[in-house]
Amino acid sequence: MVELYDDERLDYLLADNSMKIIQSPSAFSFSLDAVLLANFAYIPKKRGAILDLCTGNGVIPLLLSRRSKSNITGVEIQERIYQMAKRNIDLNNLREQIKILHGDLKCMQPIIGQSSFDVVTCNPPYFPTPSATEHNLNEYLTIARHEVFCSLEDVVKACKLHVRPGGKVSMVHRPGRLIDIISLFRKYKLEPKRIQFVYPKKGKEANMLLIEAIRDGKPDLKILPPLYVYNEDGTYTEEAEEIIYA
Amino acid sequence: MVELYDDERLDYLLADNSMKIIQSPSAFSFSLDAVLLANFAYIPKKRGAILDLCTGNGVIPLLLSRRSKSNITGVEIQERIYQMAKRNIDLNNLREQIKILHGDLKCMQPIIGQSSFDVVTCNPPYFPTPSATEHNLNEYLTIARHEVFCSLEDVVKACKLHVRPGGKVSMVHRPGRLIDIISLFRKYKLEPKRIQFVYPKKGKEANMLLIEAIRDGKPDLKILPPLYVYNEDGTYTEEAEEIIYA
Repeated sequence: MVELYDDERLDYLLADNSMKIIQSPSAFSFSLDAVLLANFAYIPKKRGAILDLCTGNGVIPLLLSRRSKSNITGVEIQERIYQMAKRNIDLNNLREQIKILHGDLKCMQPIIGQSSFDVVTCNPPYFPTPSATEHNLNEYLTIARHEVFCSLEDVVKACKLHVRPGGKVSMVHRPGRLIDIISLFRKYKLEPKRIQFVYPKKGKEANMLLIEAIRDGKPDLKILPPLYVYNEDGTYTEEAEEIIYA
Repeated sequence: MVELYDDERLDYLLADNSMKIIQSPSAFSFSLDAVLLANFAYIPKKRGAILDLCTGNGVIPLLLSRRSKSNITGVEIQERIYQMAKRNIDLNNLREQIKILHGDLKCMQPIIGQSSFDVVTCNPPYFPTPSATEHNLNEYLTIARHEVFCSLEDVVKACKLHVRPGGKVSMVHRPGRLIDIISLFRKYKLEPKRIQFVYPKKGKEANMLLIEAIRDGKPDLKILPPLYVYNEDGTYTEEAEEIIYA
């Protein structure tokens, strides 16, 4: 049994119906970005410790638990969404592997220490300043999408603080912020190693980027083959389908 | 009549045989990189001033003269290759439009001033330090390919010095240097606006990048659709063919 509040609904997370997830149109629903990040990140298959910042309803920890036996910690700042994430872990019987914390990523050191994770993943808010037109009247969505409680620099700084030297940081973001991301990664000694650009379809500009860096790594960047999401007819491409329904 | 020295040969530069170019396997032959850069760069169609640093045998000025009535200045540090570039301009009767200067890009200010060009293009040496294995025994090729006479920072600094505020800088380089390029562009107030990654073929990592920045521009980066050079069977793709034989 699971309790659902307000407009929450229970969705299948995976095509094989083996995982369920609570979502809410007015509070938090995961997007393709999270699914692509969970697929892109290199993670330790067996033992290890993974941290997911801005975890939302816990979608990334849930997806990563399918690929790894590592302990996974998710951090979410919004109380209501943190509660959703916790119920999602319970719902899928993953309390042994996944722990969700309610807190501000800028202040987690007393609780989770520093340099203690092999991998840090993050699907952060994308938009720098909530302008009048961009600002979402819904507070939950505004906080999830805009840098209200944390700037991109706060996020990168937290990634650096919590990943061990030689550990990996994976992030999904918008291509328009690539220059900011790279500048901040360099500032915090996170050396980008792999970038993949995601294109909605052929002939269009990229609308998403996946980036992985190694703390204190040596410069050696690879630009992976592009990932197309949709075919001309609006159906998923084979490669997108493999990731989404794998 | 044109004089050819040593192993120099006369090639057609364009498919319509309207342009010829002197090349030398031992001194300087242009590559696909230069052709893609000449196609990628936004240039003023009518009047304007364009500077091409590391101009080699003048291939980029020659190609740009087909797309623009602007005055074009090329700068080459190697005396022998500068002489080739000069003969190439004469050979194609472009002395009115293109001027080739023999000099070091770090020291051109007394001759060409500062902030005086609408566009600066550059296909610089790609390799940071000539190591024993990478070092080319041929001095001409080593200087063209390795940062012997100029570092990437020297190049970016010169681009910034010579382009006017609001003017454009276009460069071709290797994806492995993206982080360095972006960090240096930001340092010298060149804001990247367009990046295109070039892939040898589908499923491979990118092996070239084209980047355009605006001096003192506002952050607003676009990642263009990827450019594939070869089909599976080794023939040029349609898009590559259009650029190369246009």
